[in-house]
Amino acid sequence: MKIGVLGTGTVGRTVGSRLAERGHEVILGTRDVSRTLARTEPDAMGNPPFSTWHEQHPQVTLGSFTEAAAHGEMVINATGGGGSIEALTVAGADTMAGKALLDIANPLDFSHGVPPTLFVKDTDSLGEQIQRAFPDVRVVKALNTMTAALMADPAQTAGGEHTTFVSGNDEDAKKAVTALLEDLGHADVIDLGDITTARGSEMLLPIWLRLWGALGTPMFNFKIVR
Amino acid sequence: MKIGVLGTGTVGRTVGSRLAERGHEVILGTRDVSRTLARTEPDAMGNPPFSTWHEQHPQVTLGSFTEAAAHGEMVINATGGGGSIEALTVAGADTMAGKALLDIANPLDFSHGVPPTLFVKDTDSLGEQIQRAFPDVRVVKALNTMTAALMADPAQTAGGEHTTFVSGNDEDAKKAVTALLEDLGHADVIDLGDITTARGSEMLLPIWLRLWGALGTPMFNFKIVR
Repeated sequence: MKIGVLGTGTVGRTVGSRLAERGHEVILGTRDVSRTLARTEPDAMGNPPFSTWHEQHPQVTLGSFTEAAAHGEMVINATGGGGSIEALTVAGADTMAGKALLDIANPLDFSHGVPPTLFVKDTDSLGEQIQRAFPDVRVVKALNTMTAALMADPAQTAGGEHTTFVSGNDEDAKKAVTALLEDLGHADVIDLGDITTARGSEMLLPIWLRLWGALGTPMFNFKIVR
Repeated sequence: MKIGVLGTGTVGRTVGSRLAERGHEVILGTRDVSRTLARTEPDAMGNPPFSTWHEQHPQVTLGSFTEAAAHGEMVINATGGGGSIEALTVAGADTMAGKALLDIANPLDFSHGVPPTLFVKDTDSLGEQIQRAFPDVRVVKALNTMTAALMADPAQTAGGEHTTFVSGNDEDAKKAVTALLEDLGHADVIDLGDITTARGSEMLLPIWLRLWGALGTPMFNFKIVR
């Protein structure tokens, strides 16, 4: 499938390169292609500059937000939650109209330090904010409840025997996202319901962050045992 | 161990009677003993009136909040989250001073309908509110992330192979609670850290409620796969 991934951070790189390995045609979208390529320093998380990473992952094409969104039969939002609406606006509501948008972003607010809080929660969610801002896009919240390495390759922990949640208003878009997730190795995909259920999966972040601290590794995931 | 359980609803009954089965001496505390015994109608959830339940569980003693708190070497808060501070105040700060308080309550707000929202979250938690209100009590948040039947007897789902979280400032109190949980069959107890980490476990409720809807049963639990 042709997939446009918005965002060149850890999530965009990890998910985008894995999708390319699985045979998908991936364009990673960024706000300013020349600026992204010109960076020579690691980012705040210690990740190598994009150009260094790209040399090792030439199967992924870099483009603008709009080029990535136009290319994709499915679009993936891998931008930071605080900048998602703006990035999607640049990508273009018309460009994405009718397409499934897999929204991985979390509404993390680092303005009060660490651990971050959520800038929207409980009575609304980032997934709903995006769906309201782009009513012609078929938003599906998923993958936001685990570290990027497990989003892309869940078998790295317990053979993939853990759970992924999907939330969205459009059944066909949820089916398309679920098929993509299963192709990546996600063994247990639970459909929580409409996009308002993204309140639930986004509110997992506070315990996820504390589990990371308690366990000393982000290589864990929630499994719903029943 | 002598245990005082505050609250005669589903959580108090289920956990209290199971602890009695395990050999503990349990007093269930209520605001008004004679009123609790006088009820003849099922509650809003369809549970039988207390007196009917009590005939089948005579090993549990009924008392006032204060009597239960005075009896317990450990006290368990199984009251509704909205009434917890008031119930604990009636039980008595002095009565509970120095004791471990296992706080199961969730800050559910039903005033806007179903699903409920949380009346405190993200920047504070009910566990912290209780710890601040009763500084001499050693509060441990636990068990609030699963249905009452699994709190009391986790082996009912997947042989108990799922996860229970504990949060609290006092290491000895967390050890005592963890030992009690293991005695009930909880196979995987994760210490999240101090009482502020209760923000994480309380914020699991929104997805828990939606999973109940999606799965059609409350007999599930989170397992942290790593």
